[in-house]
Amino acid sequence: MKSVLTPLDFLARSAWVYRDRVAVVDGERRFTYAELNERVHRQASALRAIGVQPGDRVAVLAPNSAAALEAHFGVPMAGAVLVMLNTRLQAAELAWILNHCEARVVIADPQLAPALPQAVHVISDYEGWLATGEFPARGMPEPEEDGFIAINYTSGTTGVPKGVMYTHRGAYLNALGEVVEHGLNSSSVYLWTLPMFHCNGWCFPWAVTAAGARHVCLRQVDPQRMVELIRAEGVTHLCGAPVVVSTLTQYCAAQGIRFESGLKIVTAGAPPPPAVIRAAEEMGASLAHAYGLTETYGPHTICAWHPEWDALPAAERAQLRARQGVAYTVAGTDLRVVDGEMRDVPADGQTMGEVVMRGNNVMLGYYKNPQATEEAFRGGWFHSGDLAVMHADGYIEVRDRKKDIVISGGENISSIEVEKVLAEHPAVLEAAVVAAPDEKWGEVPKAYIGLKPGQTATAEELIEFCRARLAHFKCPKQVEFGVLPRTVTGKVRKNELRGRG
Amino acid sequence: MKSVLTPLDFLARSAWVYRDRVAVVDGERRFTYAELNERVHRQASALRAIGVQPGDRVAVLAPNSAAALEAHFGVPMAGAVLVMLNTRLQAAELAWILNHCEARVVIADPQLAPALPQAVHVISDYEGWLATGEFPARGMPEPEEDGFIAINYTSGTTGVPKGVMYTHRGAYLNALGEVVEHGLNSSSVYLWTLPMFHCNGWCFPWAVTAAGARHVCLRQVDPQRMVELIRAEGVTHLCGAPVVVSTLTQYCAAQGIRFESGLKIVTAGAPPPPAVIRAAEEMGASLAHAYGLTETYGPHTICAWHPEWDALPAAERAQLRARQGVAYTVAGTDLRVVDGEMRDVPADGQTMGEVVMRGNNVMLGYYKNPQATEEAFRGGWFHSGDLAVMHADGYIEVRDRKKDIVISGGENISSIEVEKVLAEHPAVLEAAVVAAPDEKWGEVPKAYIGLKPGQTATAEELIEFCRARLAHFKCPKQVEFGVLPRTVTGKVRKNELRGRG
Repeated sequence: MKSVLTPLDFLARSAWVYRDRVAVVDGERRFTYAELNERVHRQASALRAIGVQPGDRVAVLAPNSAAALEAHFGVPMAGAVLVMLNTRLQAAELAWILNHCEARVVIADPQLAPALPQAVHVISDYEGWLATGEFPARGMPEPEEDGFIAINYTSGTTGVPKGVMYTHRGAYLNALGEVVEHGLNSSSVYLWTLPMFHCNGWCFPWAVTAAGARHVCLRQVDPQRMVELIRAEGVTHLCGAPVVVSTLTQYCAAQGIRFESGLKIVTAGAPPPPAVIRAAEEMGASLAHAYGLTETYGPHTICAWHPEWDALPAAERAQLRARQGVAYTVAGTDLRVVDGEMRDVPADGQTMGEVVMRGNNVMLGYYKNPQATEEAFRGGWFHSGDLAVMHADGYIEVRDRKKDIVISGGENISSIEVEKVLAEHPAVLEAAVVAAPDEKWGEVPKAYIGLKPGQTATAEELIEFCRARLAHFKCPKQVEFGVLPRTVTGKVRKNELRGRG
Repeated sequence: MKSVLTPLDFLARSAWVYRDRVAVVDGERRFTYAELNERVHRQASALRAIGVQPGDRVAVLAPNSAAALEAHFGVPMAGAVLVMLNTRLQAAELAWILNHCEARVVIADPQLAPALPQAVHVISDYEGWLATGEFPARGMPEPEEDGFIAINYTSGTTGVPKGVMYTHRGAYLNALGEVVEHGLNSSSVYLWTLPMFHCNGWCFPWAVTAAGARHVCLRQVDPQRMVELIRAEGVTHLCGAPVVVSTLTQYCAAQGIRFESGLKIVTAGAPPPPAVIRAAEEMGASLAHAYGLTETYGPHTICAWHPEWDALPAAERAQLRARQGVAYTVAGTDLRVVDGEMRDVPADGQTMGEVVMRGNNVMLGYYKNPQATEEAFRGGWFHSGDLAVMHADGYIEVRDRKKDIVISGGENISSIEVEKVLAEHPAVLEAAVVAAPDEKWGEVPKAYIGLKPGQTATAEELIEFCRARLAHFKCPKQVEFGVLPRTVTGKVRKNELRGRG
């Protein structure tokens, strides 16, 4: 027999099995799974009551909160499509997205609502509105497996945002994928450091619910509050970019804090530097390294850890951990590193190629953008735009964004490789390397450096540091100091750095 | 994007990610995942070479071994349908099944091959034949998600066997279901105490492979050998009926053996008696209780454990653990207990109804038996034939097979309820209760009792023991002592006991 794969089933089951267990902690409020389910039904029926039809887009502008979590179930229960909005966007950016997706309604946090365009139907008294819904919700449409559950707009570092379309099937399988890779179960407690508007929180709203685990909301990344919640709630899992991890490790190192609860951190967005891996271990946490894009429902690969590697020296472990690894179990073998003719690059750890993926954990396409969809899927695989090498053991290591590579005298230089060396310098907090024009070499690497508070270093010193560790042609020819510009999702704006010349 | 859900992907991925890790231990032989994959390719191509076409049935008559495991991947890779044969069947029963499924070929253990009909194409020199295959296999058909991967013949306690059809999708999802419920990962080591011919080993050939874990073959249940393997290989998981568990616990109790490796045992087929649960805990193992049928790919429910229950007294914990519980995460909420009109029984822990299931973890149907299929799926749900109650917390507890219920003076008596009480008597090893005809009451319960070695008890004593613990109408009116007759899959042959009058 077949039944539809939809993450709505995860909530229905946990509301049955774990009805009296705490599902959500949001500040002072705590909801059991039965209560979460009831609130979701009310949301879905209240959406229908204000005219939302199956297929309509419903946007949410909210920090990590019960409302945002509930929308991951209530919106699809009503048959609608969820559009999580990045809370750091400016009014004009929000207006562009709302116009593009033709959102029927926006559920908005009252503090954030003023950034929304006037023409939009905004629900800002969420609790009052929710109370108008009914439980159980009646007359909800049957979900369709290949139906469309969410659109996630990529922030992008250039160009207009693209709306990445997710399906019920993809969300279901990727959520199970997170359960499998990270061993979520009903004893797990998940801290919401990762924004839910980021690839639907890597599908963790659905994954944590599938496991019957506890969601602990966190409205902004504040290390003191994180520590309080980790201790008070017995947090076992959290996700975030390396910068989130280092925010926590630095605070814990300064305060002498060590967790005994077996905290697991999933990091993605950039490879965790060895120093961050060490600091996490010292804090009592283990680090898993995942990699993916909005187009792959968040993580598509995991640096699957071999138990044997535990015995290796720290430096070697850090090197292995910095690799993006292999496809998730649910993604099978749908991951390759290919040259311009879609041939696999040799597994030599040196030859760079583009990372391509396909399968259930790759988006349906870009909303109302068939041209970009076709371009992204040329050859039947999704083109990530990331350049990687394939190691001899089958693990990939991302070396650069395709557009961030530095080509100097005909040699490809991975900006990430140079950044990793710079980050090992004791005075360096963060480093970004971009191509600078050069008459002789075409391009040369230029480094932008943020120093740790109270530390100093000269350009010459950093260049020498690199020359002792890298082929000389890879070393920065110029170094500039200052705070690095970042996108709203925390990525360094390399195009802005390149623009500085 | 969509890709086909098939367990073949699990092997392809583990052969990539865990290429050099041990996949299979079979006696003195150890194969890595790369080697397992190579052998599977050779099997698939060798099958094609002898004329096996997509859709053909390929049968296997073998103990738990590398060959049997490989057939779970090699047969579907060749596009064929796997028919695992129960090694305890008689020649006539095997002949009936092979004739019914029209097996093109049988891969047979040399010791078991003589039981096969002469007309059948038998491969008994497995290793020699395997060497004729090629790696990588070429020209294999693309698997289809809804395509048919296996037929499992039910032994049944009455009537002719029925061929239960599994699909690639169902096998994939149920295997992931086992990974999720039992927390399998690449550090797991699985001991093959459960026969692979029993519902395809509850999908564990696929599940253990998906996790990149280690299969440890066991050709027959021998407690001394089990202990040796658990210690030598660091076994973390095994499955079996309560009788398998008690075989192990009795041996360990007698030898003073306690495991320190965190052994998890999944038991199904009958509720684990409190004594077995206690004995497992004393042995250092934790017990998970699952329930299902051949028609549900093995387990469909799990007694999902609430961490809070750990604090309860042993007797209460045993009572909770004896319940069959709730649907697997991948089965969602597709589990009900219904009356004859398909209405849910009240969740009062008392009203019996039939357990019905549906969804991805329910078979496609009975092979070449549309009438039985239609009958089983009446009302759109699969009818298990098991009678259960629904507890107030949403957990089911199976009380009887529909045909094993005793109806005495208009009262329904659960034979299992009476058996559970009898099993608590210190002299009782095993108990079976069936209906005996009675002029006054229509039927009365009659108990068949196997005593523990060296123990004695009288019929009167056991009846009194029951009367002190049960409503008097539920207590056996007659007691007979002796060894209980069992089917090849270990179920008590109650129809035979009833036949004795």
